[in-house]
Amino acid sequence: MTSIVVLSGGMDSATALWLAHREGLDIQALTFDYGSKHNDREFAHAKLLCDRLEIPLTRVALPFIGEHFKSDLLKSGGEIPEGHYADPSMKRTVVPFRNGIMLSIAVGYAESVGATEVIIANHFGDHAIYPDCRLAFIKHFGAAAQAGTYAPVSVRSPFCVMDKATIARIGSLLGVPYEMTYSCYKGGEKHCGKCGTCFERKEAFQKAGLDDPTEYEA
Amino acid sequence: MTSIVVLSGGMDSATALWLAHREGLDIQALTFDYGSKHNDREFAHAKLLCDRLEIPLTRVALPFIGEHFKSDLLKSGGEIPEGHYADPSMKRTVVPFRNGIMLSIAVGYAESVGATEVIIANHFGDHAIYPDCRLAFIKHFGAAAQAGTYAPVSVRSPFCVMDKATIARIGSLLGVPYEMTYSCYKGGEKHCGKCGTCFERKEAFQKAGLDDPTEYEA
Repeated sequence: MTSIVVLSGGMDSATALWLAHREGLDIQALTFDYGSKHNDREFAHAKLLCDRLEIPLTRVALPFIGEHFKSDLLKSGGEIPEGHYADPSMKRTVVPFRNGIMLSIAVGYAESVGATEVIIANHFGDHAIYPDCRLAFIKHFGAAAQAGTYAPVSVRSPFCVMDKATIARIGSLLGVPYEMTYSCYKGGEKHCGKCGTCFERKEAFQKAGLDDPTEYEA
Repeated sequence: MTSIVVLSGGMDSATALWLAHREGLDIQALTFDYGSKHNDREFAHAKLLCDRLEIPLTRVALPFIGEHFKSDLLKSGGEIPEGHYADPSMKRTVVPFRNGIMLSIAVGYAESVGATEVIIANHFGDHAIYPDCRLAFIKHFGAAAQAGTYAPVSVRSPFCVMDKATIARIGSLLGVPYEMTYSCYKGGEKHCGKCGTCFERKEAFQKAGLDDPTEYEA
């Protein structure tokens, strides 16, 4: 059985990758360039993570998002807001239906290469801001994927109702090299420490009682 | 209320466009270049149709499909099979989860431009071969779109349980200029008359008791 892991290069998808690897699955990783400020930095980290586990990584370019979609996460959008990841201001970083788009492509890709599962690492902390990270979306989308493919292809979201601290604890047990992951929405060489996703990253390590291996600017 | 119509330039989506126009909706059309042999020909016809109704048309390029997906419908695939559209050989023309991918992008685009509905013209005749044209897929995907967007964005499939002859009858009443539509999978200047979708087109006009305005090679 082959599984496709949607990999950003951040903590959550790295943990999903390590989990699938520990399960002994045949894995291919898929990463997306949708024109965000941090996509190139994410890709470099996704590559490091895949190289560590000897997993093939395919990068899919989605130039239409930068051209036609509105979000401050994109190079075509405004400044990344600073503050807590559950602040209403973080809504400006939502890329509309991004998980729907990435999952659809992953499902079609899975059917093309004979894989029967897509794994995505959305989690409970995303629920406040991102409607396409919530359990209801995942359940309905999973049913659509099964109905819309021959294999059929199923969708697994192992962390959907867990918070990021729990993911960090799981990853710590699995030996995920979190120093090789990247989260910051600003896309700089170091994590800024001020954007929503940097806040969330710091908080996860703290709550999990783990050393944070991240070098933050602030 | 703004609606996004997924428009290929074929009979079915042209009829959906005319239907939405007759309903008085504010409409934007979205067409996709996914690397098929007939995409450029489709686009030219989609443009003609939109110009006739003064509807803005946006073309979205999906180069990853030609690079990573397997289907004889694609330029990267083999010859288009000839024969009836419900023949098992037509499975070679399936682009895995194509409707899932196009719908996801249309839903994200809708949310980006403030639209609240996506209209797609899949129909009952597609059900034999294409799992992502069936009612179960549409129902689950529609629920995922609503759960995964703020607006929320809904999905409408006006012809999901109708056959193509019924669509042609509806379109005839709506005044759809079918001579301005294009179906052939081979992508030639004239319809080949031998591929699955040409068979289906001919049969639809015959069953509907309508004159077929198409010039076929064969």
